[in-house]
Amino acid sequence: MDRAGRSPCSLLGLDTLSRGARIFGMSKPARLGLLGLGTVGSGLVEIVRKNAASIEKRSGVRLEIVRALVKSPGKARPLPLEQVVLDAESIFNDPGIDIVVEVMGGIEPAKGYILRALEAGKSVVTANKAVLAAHGAEIFQKAKDTGKQLGFEASVCGGIPIIRALSSGMIANEVDELVGILNGTSNYILTRMYKDKLSFEEALRLAQVNGLAEADPTFDVEGIDAAHKLIVLTELTFQTKATLDDLEREGITQIEPVDIKVADEFGFVIKPVAVARRQGDALDLRVHPALVPFEHPLGPVSDEFNAVMVKGDATGEMIFHGKGAGSLPTASAVMSDIIEIARNPSSGVMWNPTKSRRVNHLEGRSRYYLRFPIHDRSGLIGKIATVLGNYGISITHALARLNNGTGNVMIVTHETSETEVCRALAEITAAGVLSGEPLSLRILE
Amino acid sequence: MDRAGRSPCSLLGLDTLSRGARIFGMSKPARLGLLGLGTVGSGLVEIVRKNAASIEKRSGVRLEIVRALVKSPGKARPLPLEQVVLDAESIFNDPGIDIVVEVMGGIEPAKGYILRALEAGKSVVTANKAVLAAHGAEIFQKAKDTGKQLGFEASVCGGIPIIRALSSGMIANEVDELVGILNGTSNYILTRMYKDKLSFEEALRLAQVNGLAEADPTFDVEGIDAAHKLIVLTELTFQTKATLDDLEREGITQIEPVDIKVADEFGFVIKPVAVARRQGDALDLRVHPALVPFEHPLGPVSDEFNAVMVKGDATGEMIFHGKGAGSLPTASAVMSDIIEIARNPSSGVMWNPTKSRRVNHLEGRSRYYLRFPIHDRSGLIGKIATVLGNYGISITHALARLNNGTGNVMIVTHETSETEVCRALAEITAAGVLSGEPLSLRILE
Repeated sequence: MDRAGRSPCSLLGLDTLSRGARIFGMSKPARLGLLGLGTVGSGLVEIVRKNAASIEKRSGVRLEIVRALVKSPGKARPLPLEQVVLDAESIFNDPGIDIVVEVMGGIEPAKGYILRALEAGKSVVTANKAVLAAHGAEIFQKAKDTGKQLGFEASVCGGIPIIRALSSGMIANEVDELVGILNGTSNYILTRMYKDKLSFEEALRLAQVNGLAEADPTFDVEGIDAAHKLIVLTELTFQTKATLDDLEREGITQIEPVDIKVADEFGFVIKPVAVARRQGDALDLRVHPALVPFEHPLGPVSDEFNAVMVKGDATGEMIFHGKGAGSLPTASAVMSDIIEIARNPSSGVMWNPTKSRRVNHLEGRSRYYLRFPIHDRSGLIGKIATVLGNYGISITHALARLNNGTGNVMIVTHETSETEVCRALAEITAAGVLSGEPLSLRILE
Repeated sequence: MDRAGRSPCSLLGLDTLSRGARIFGMSKPARLGLLGLGTVGSGLVEIVRKNAASIEKRSGVRLEIVRALVKSPGKARPLPLEQVVLDAESIFNDPGIDIVVEVMGGIEPAKGYILRALEAGKSVVTANKAVLAAHGAEIFQKAKDTGKQLGFEASVCGGIPIIRALSSGMIANEVDELVGILNGTSNYILTRMYKDKLSFEEALRLAQVNGLAEADPTFDVEGIDAAHKLIVLTELTFQTKATLDDLEREGITQIEPVDIKVADEFGFVIKPVAVARRQGDALDLRVHPALVPFEHPLGPVSDEFNAVMVKGDATGEMIFHGKGAGSLPTASAVMSDIIEIARNPSSGVMWNPTKSRRVNHLEGRSRYYLRFPIHDRSGLIGKIATVLGNYGISITHALARLNNGTGNVMIVTHETSETEVCRALAEITAAGVLSGEPLSLRILE
């Protein structure tokens, strides 16, 4: 009860509806213990406040936020004080809580709390891609051993229901390929560089000002967040346990306005892509910026939006496109798991981590965009083209943009491999003919 | 047993895996009785043949096609003869069948069979949008009364898991708007008119040759099929029972190459769209071709692909894009329901048809593209513009394309309503200044 003697249910507006539903025995309860009350936790409180009655009507599940764990006392909270606690055990030990919702992020204590909640007989819903990427096998084994459920829809691409699309909607398919834009921060930065003609640094500052990038943006701009999400999708789709070391990973920090401009002239936009492609039992796993044709399904995916394109052997290509982050989109995905668990207590994503295979690398081949910063000197283009030719790299387009004696040579190649490109670029760099680091970007087709 | 003494399970390659699973008690059975063995039914047989083992591993459900009902004896079938029957009761009465799969299409006898199967204690999966659009309320009431489940993922947009996306993935949202491309035949025709520069008749013939249009294409090109799907989505999303009479509906047969070309010059593609938009308790429901900006999320949705864009109050815009028809995509969606029902026998889409409201019309406003066929005479553009002005319709672009004394006047308007447009066009037509029927197409923004 709060000071006015009102129960938490009436504060959330559920009072009358709950009593009615309980009398007629129609609704299933979902009594929630939140771990964390930050961005996503506040979004959950907001959704319950605004939509709980409608959700109960449409799903038959009656939502109640019982209690929330926070780290710091004294801050303003969207729940009454008596529902805000500093002690996690009061959530794990409470028989009046059905589902524990982990929305605190980070590896510890989140991992320990998830395992403890499952051991205490609670099902768990999490939005935490970092902990699943590093410890998914152990966590899913614990869920299997305890017979409880683990929902993780919100861990990949926020509001987009990609996990249930892969594990339920496309269950009849063998999936050979996933290509996506999995990180909203880097997509926003590249979109603003394109649409507003900004440098990387200017676009990053704009993202930070708009709450779309952290003060330390490393996880986002270096592709680590996208890599975590790709690891979760790879385990779900290919039953293969991958780690960060198994992926080729490159961030977006080296991209310059001239790359955006020349890509556009050639009919491409630059997007931060993630690829998981199977051939036999080998996997091609990578996260990197790429040139994407205007008319590609991922072409219009802009700003903080994410998308996943899945190729199933029965469905063909399927694309899911929506907001991949943010308080309400992520809370929406968390809530979809809560409703599903409350409606089907005995179901669960069939994830048998002990059967996961190690990654057997497949090196992907593609066309490349290459940029070489140079001082204007005769013979340079010939030298660059000759070295490329020595590695079997054929050129389809070459462009020199020079101003006052310095500039860039841009080259578009035929299909080749990352190995050949790296070797060629190393040799060209070692020849001392460049005025700066060369850049190579794959072309997605 | 077939002549070689092999059981149906071994014919489908499930023998060893089934025995193993039965010994360890791990898998749940899904023993299927198919009603129909045509395009979609054959797709189901193909999926079971190719992917049943993998599906069992990933989902814990063991698939078995027990029997299939056909209309005509003597045709070649993808199942052994002893599994093909002419008598539906042998499916409804068999305790060895768990789920009845209705993939015959049409209103009767499909409707009667669905009701009979539910009464006989079977859960039902259907791909039939026509029967749900006309009789959904009665069918879902029967499912509710018998406590059995009804899966209908395949009834809207084939392989795209839109039903589970709306009823599960986005359950936490209030949805205000759905905009989609729901019919692959008309999207293919308009795409080919655009990309191959064909007339409507030429593109329709191409579609028929490629198996993407029926000999009688009326349901597809007149928007009836899309309207059925919109009705199913409207009931699910807005709990509102709509009929064909509640929708504004227009087909694609009046579109000419000049419309495709001028739209392109203005930065649009013409797509067959379906809209369900809520404002308060009023609904704007319509199916019609529209000018879609290149960069709109629906812009790249081409050929036989479908897409649905949903606006949720927590997720914001979400787009689902994939193959909306065809044997394997539709069978994939049917299979997703089968797996879901087998895993969760007590769950079901919460659809309470007695609560459905009647449609309270909302007239949508938009910008329009108008085309007026004329003989070249001075003063005509002035006359047309004056009449439009009398109905409060402002002009943003006007274009006359004339050749040897005949041609068209194309006009793009500011925002107006269908009522004003219809009245203005009627007056202009009645004035006797046109050489043919005028065309009006909304602009989607």
